[in-house]
Amino acid sequence: TKTYQIAVLPGDGIGPEVMAEALKVLKAVSRKENVAFRTQEALVGGAAWDHYHSHLPEETLTICRESDAILFGSVGGPVREQNTPKWQGVEVHSLLGLRKAFGLFANLRPARLFPALAFASPLRQDVAREGFDILVVRELTGGIYFGQPKGRTGTGEEEKAFDTMVYSRCEIRRIAQVAFEIARKRRQKVTSIDKANVLTTMVFWRQVVEEVAADYPDVTYEPMYVDNAAMQMVKNPQQFDVLLCGNMFGDILSDEAAMLTGSLGMLPSASFAGSGFGMYEPGGGSAQDIAGQHIANPIAQILSTAMMLRYSLNMEKPARDIEKAVEKVLAEGHRTADIAGREDTPVSTGTMGDLITTAY
Amino acid sequence: TKTYQIAVLPGDGIGPEVMAEALKVLKAVSRKENVAFRTQEALVGGAAWDHYHSHLPEETLTICRESDAILFGSVGGPVREQNTPKWQGVEVHSLLGLRKAFGLFANLRPARLFPALAFASPLRQDVAREGFDILVVRELTGGIYFGQPKGRTGTGEEEKAFDTMVYSRCEIRRIAQVAFEIARKRRQKVTSIDKANVLTTMVFWRQVVEEVAADYPDVTYEPMYVDNAAMQMVKNPQQFDVLLCGNMFGDILSDEAAMLTGSLGMLPSASFAGSGFGMYEPGGGSAQDIAGQHIANPIAQILSTAMMLRYSLNMEKPARDIEKAVEKVLAEGHRTADIAGREDTPVSTGTMGDLITTAY
Ligand SMILES: CC(C)[C@H](C(=O)O)[C@@H](O)C(=O)O
Ligand SMILES: CC(C)[C@H](C(=O)O)[C@@H](O)C(=O)O
Repeated sequence: TKTYQIAVLPGDGIGPEVMAEALKVLKAVSRKENVAFRTQEALVGGAAWDHYHSHLPEETLTICRESDAILFGSVGGPVREQNTPKWQGVEVHSLLGLRKAFGLFANLRPARLFPALAFASPLRQDVAREGFDILVVRELTGGIYFGQPKGRTGTGEEEKAFDTMVYSRCEIRRIAQVAFEIARKRRQKVTSIDKANVLTTMVFWRQVVEEVAADYPDVTYEPMYVDNAAMQMVKNPQQFDVLLCGNMFGDILSDEAAMLTGSLGMLPSASFAGSGFGMYEPGGGSAQDIAGQHIANPIAQILSTAMMLRYSLNMEKPARDIEKAVEKVLAEGHRTADIAGREDTPVSTGTMGDLITTAY
Repeated sequence: TKTYQIAVLPGDGIGPEVMAEALKVLKAVSRKENVAFRTQEALVGGAAWDHYHSHLPEETLTICRESDAILFGSVGGPVREQNTPKWQGVEVHSLLGLRKAFGLFANLRPARLFPALAFASPLRQDVAREGFDILVVRELTGGIYFGQPKGRTGTGEEEKAFDTMVYSRCEIRRIAQVAFEIARKRRQKVTSIDKANVLTTMVFWRQVVEEVAADYPDVTYEPMYVDNAAMQMVKNPQQFDVLLCGNMFGDILSDEAAMLTGSLGMLPSASFAGSGFGMYEPGGGSAQDIAGQHIANPIAQILSTAMMLRYSLNMEKPARDIEKAVEKVLAEGHRTADIAGREDTPVSTGTMGDLITTAY
């Protein structure tokens, strides 16, 4: 039997609870597909701080380096403790640290509105009822997040701070290729987000994306300004298939799209390097306010596990089977509290995990 | 009688039609308040191109320089002609040119959802029905739009393009002061948008805004990350009063907020300098697809005129009276096509202008 090594980083808040459910599903995959997963837990975020006074200790990086993929929970502290050393900067240190350390340049963030959950969307119900299925493909290791120089100069009224937005052709090309490849397997449309009317970087972005688009005549390519995209997203989300974005614009638009689904607890994400190595995490955050109550929705973590199988382990079939199991359980009407309608009796985190494992 | 000189720049598309209605209202203000407005028309955008081969001719700048304020219509060509010399870059040349030439650093973009027009909002009706009233205060002459250096270097795969996001203490302070002053006259809350967890510029932005906030103990100050703001805006727009933003984030969030009102044709905007000089323009754009049909909504242009009276000419009373006249006409059920419900018979651009002028 083939053996994969998975670094499991549950992190903070609801992270450990929902991770436990994802691992149940992974065990089921192991039985059904006759593969072995050697999972190795490591500390990250506030959970790591207590032991190492670091949010991303070297030991955790080592475990990740020895693995085929990282299954990540979530990091972040309670709202009222944001400014304590334990929690300050925890997301940036953990997430940007891992992205940079492993060159995770491609970030996939599906935002899918299931028609059955349309009532939870903040959109007008005639818009929401049709559902939508957007995949944000976000560049994750470049742009203004990491561009140099960054700094501060001067004093008094003339004190200034600055950051640099920068993209090279190879950075733009490789993320564009990811977007077009995936669009081929979806609805054959890529909307590339830029601000080419104002930013030099974005003029270049548009030019390189057009170069790549020429290699995919079967995929419809359309450029769109970021401000317009922020409007179109709420007006008519159905028009989008794959949304290709730089780091900063992808940060904003993926969150807008996620919120429109009304169910953050359902959204997985993947961040991978060219090698296939990747990190898989739910979109929703540590949700400290409900941690430990066993009411968190484990679906995002479970669907992240499916993405891991698909993108890092090249196991398309169990990935699909997990996704189908989730759909089946939802179709049967099972709901955790976050997606429960007024008439539903919510199930616990563990029950939802069991239901999906059984349906798989 | 006091005389004000107003530069009138109707521009393209529906610009001239809606401007004509605004000028009707301005004439009524002149009679009621015993002031004189000397309006001087000047060409801008595609309309200027035909005569000058420039989107913002020197002659237009001279007329603006001799005036107390600029009343601006809209610029922009038909979708299919975007890449012709007449239309390429027309918005950037006209708008960024005027902003820079006159130091229009403060951009106010109200996004108000009138409960009576809730049905037009893309938001779920139980959210929309409460209405909302957000004022985006956007910094307009700094940040990544104008920061230096900008450029392109290298060749082949290593070719790069870059822009610089930069803000100085005095730039941040003056726009923050505008936001806090206005919040005092509204619901006493400023939400300052940043990305202080990632960008050096935004760490500094937050620091300076906090310095300013300390001078306004009567105003609630709250920082919020831009990605979270993009989510909160669709989830719960009622939580916002004044949204203080840098140039880039303000561009994105003001458009998102505008679309949530469902009536772009109703939204005015103001852009002013420290001196009081300012430019006033509707939010909606040139809408070439409906130009010349006399169905465009003139309310945004009329409310922009009210803002001009308030901010550049220090005439609060007629500004209020215009706003009340608009509300009265809407309350009576009069609607242009863009805001008409299924049972309404839409009125023309000219009729709407007349109705408001009469109600004023
Ligand atoms: C926590 C933060 C650094 C991060 C980002 O901005 O990328 C987060 O918002 C995200 O989208 O993953
Ligand atoms: C046309 C463009 C340059 C402009 C901007 O980005 O500022 C527009 O989007 C706006 O918001 O006024």
